[in-house]
Amino acid sequence: MISVVLPSAEMRDRLADRFGDASVSVWRPGDPGAPTDPVELLVLPYMIPPVQLRQLDGLPIAVVQSQTLGHDGVGEHLPSGIAYCNATDVHEGSTAELALGLILAAQRGIPDAVRDAAGGIWDHRRRPGLAGKRMLLIGVGGVGTEIIARVAPFGVDLDLVARTARHGVHGTESLPELLPRADIVVVAVPLVEETRRLVDAPFLAAMRDEALLVNVSRGEVVDTDALVAQLRTGRLRAALDVTDPEPLPPQHPLWTLPGVLITPHVGGDTDAMDDRVDAVIIEQVRRLRAGTRPLNLVHPAGR
Amino acid sequence: MISVVLPSAEMRDRLADRFGDASVSVWRPGDPGAPTDPVELLVLPYMIPPVQLRQLDGLPIAVVQSQTLGHDGVGEHLPSGIAYCNATDVHEGSTAELALGLILAAQRGIPDAVRDAAGGIWDHRRRPGLAGKRMLLIGVGGVGTEIIARVAPFGVDLDLVARTARHGVHGTESLPELLPRADIVVVAVPLVEETRRLVDAPFLAAMRDEALLVNVSRGEVVDTDALVAQLRTGRLRAALDVTDPEPLPPQHPLWTLPGVLITPHVGGDTDAMDDRVDAVIIEQVRRLRAGTRPLNLVHPAGR
Repeated sequence: MISVVLPSAEMRDRLADRFGDASVSVWRPGDPGAPTDPVELLVLPYMIPPVQLRQLDGLPIAVVQSQTLGHDGVGEHLPSGIAYCNATDVHEGSTAELALGLILAAQRGIPDAVRDAAGGIWDHRRRPGLAGKRMLLIGVGGVGTEIIARVAPFGVDLDLVARTARHGVHGTESLPELLPRADIVVVAVPLVEETRRLVDAPFLAAMRDEALLVNVSRGEVVDTDALVAQLRTGRLRAALDVTDPEPLPPQHPLWTLPGVLITPHVGGDTDAMDDRVDAVIIEQVRRLRAGTRPLNLVHPAGR
Repeated sequence: MISVVLPSAEMRDRLADRFGDASVSVWRPGDPGAPTDPVELLVLPYMIPPVQLRQLDGLPIAVVQSQTLGHDGVGEHLPSGIAYCNATDVHEGSTAELALGLILAAQRGIPDAVRDAAGGIWDHRRRPGLAGKRMLLIGVGGVGTEIIARVAPFGVDLDLVARTARHGVHGTESLPELLPRADIVVVAVPLVEETRRLVDAPFLAAMRDEALLVNVSRGEVVDTDALVAQLRTGRLRAALDVTDPEPLPPQHPLWTLPGVLITPHVGGDTDAMDDRVDAVIIEQVRRLRAGTRPLNLVHPAGR
């Protein structure tokens, strides 16, 4: 009989009868009552800071399953001897959906309309729209692929950029030529050493006037000070689901600069998430019981 | 040589050299200096109220070209002897683009995020999303067809309704069964006698709790008092690009009711519009010069 630890009674109630004869309990890193008997699978709370993985040190856990796609910081904090799986195929579609929502809202003046409504102001004016615009998508992994699918019917001219060039995709070395042509720049890369502060002062300076920067990846991909400096001039616009730091402090200048739309890191968090997370966990339990390699193993044990 | 009257110097500057030897002048209904010599084509200002067509009575105008798709009220006010063409293929894509923007913004909490930003509030919470939702689209004409194309990659279950049932499309008689199943109801019908106040108290009462009503057609398709009454209970949500009346007066309750997102009738008004309007006018001038039937003739002369 295998042992599964889940982060909430709610998840246990959803899943308990899907695991056959597995032993199921509820515990979160940091809570009292840490497991003492062997645990085959521990599911982490959603969006737990990676540093909290240190609390698992010395516990008899084989595999942890996260509920997030990004796993920046995990390698640094994961105790040796524990394997870590991310949540591939859970958040990509929702994040791409939000990316389209941010793009359309920003292009069509929805933030201004919301602010105007508070004062009963009907301010009809022409807005840029999306059709016919040139969009640069940086990152063609899981989220990027889902963005490509969703933007396809909107009639944009799409340039794709990934770490290395391939058919139909430019390498990052092409950014200096591509950035000045783009009306909309969407960042959908994982946070790794090469992408940290990828969007820095020269990147932003290369963007054309009035262009929109959309970030649905990680806040640290953008140099926030450089972005604030550009936004203060009113030359660029930004729609950000992620910021650096997070949560963004109440007095941070990003909140109220003109042309900025911020959502509080909700790219993956819709009511479609539970079903998809549950499917991943059910499959992991099936694999662990069968003794086969878990899904989405991004950090094997004992590195 | 044919004579063309345009509503602005800006449009004249864009188009003057596209008409060959036509005589081009600038005049708007109601301005002094109404044309006294025969005019083959008069282009109306964008979004002119149909009642102003009465100012053309007695003028030597053969064809008027509007810049809007909807032509409700035109039949009532157009002087006999003048033909009227609407602007098909100009606004459908932009209106569908805004419909998707309104749906995604409302589902993903963008209006709340905009209000929170003013106070520096990072309020992460789960939102409904679009994937997996059941959407009911009422109206499968030009705008409806463009909405269907743009929503296709988002993974919704789509029910279609038109005046009369056909393969894959329900008739309006099916609304009582379909409305209670829909998470999102999108109205994209022209305003005609059968659609005036189509969305009335019984329609709204049939919608499920928390459902979103999206209107990108005409404000008069919705019974505003009935909608206000439903919204006051907090049971439904609404995203409206059109209202009744328009502009919505500053003190109107719709502005500040919870769960309401209002844009100021900007469905068609993006920077993609000019090129499309220009293409229609160029084609009309070509046809008038050739003596062939104009495009999009919705009210022939001398009815």
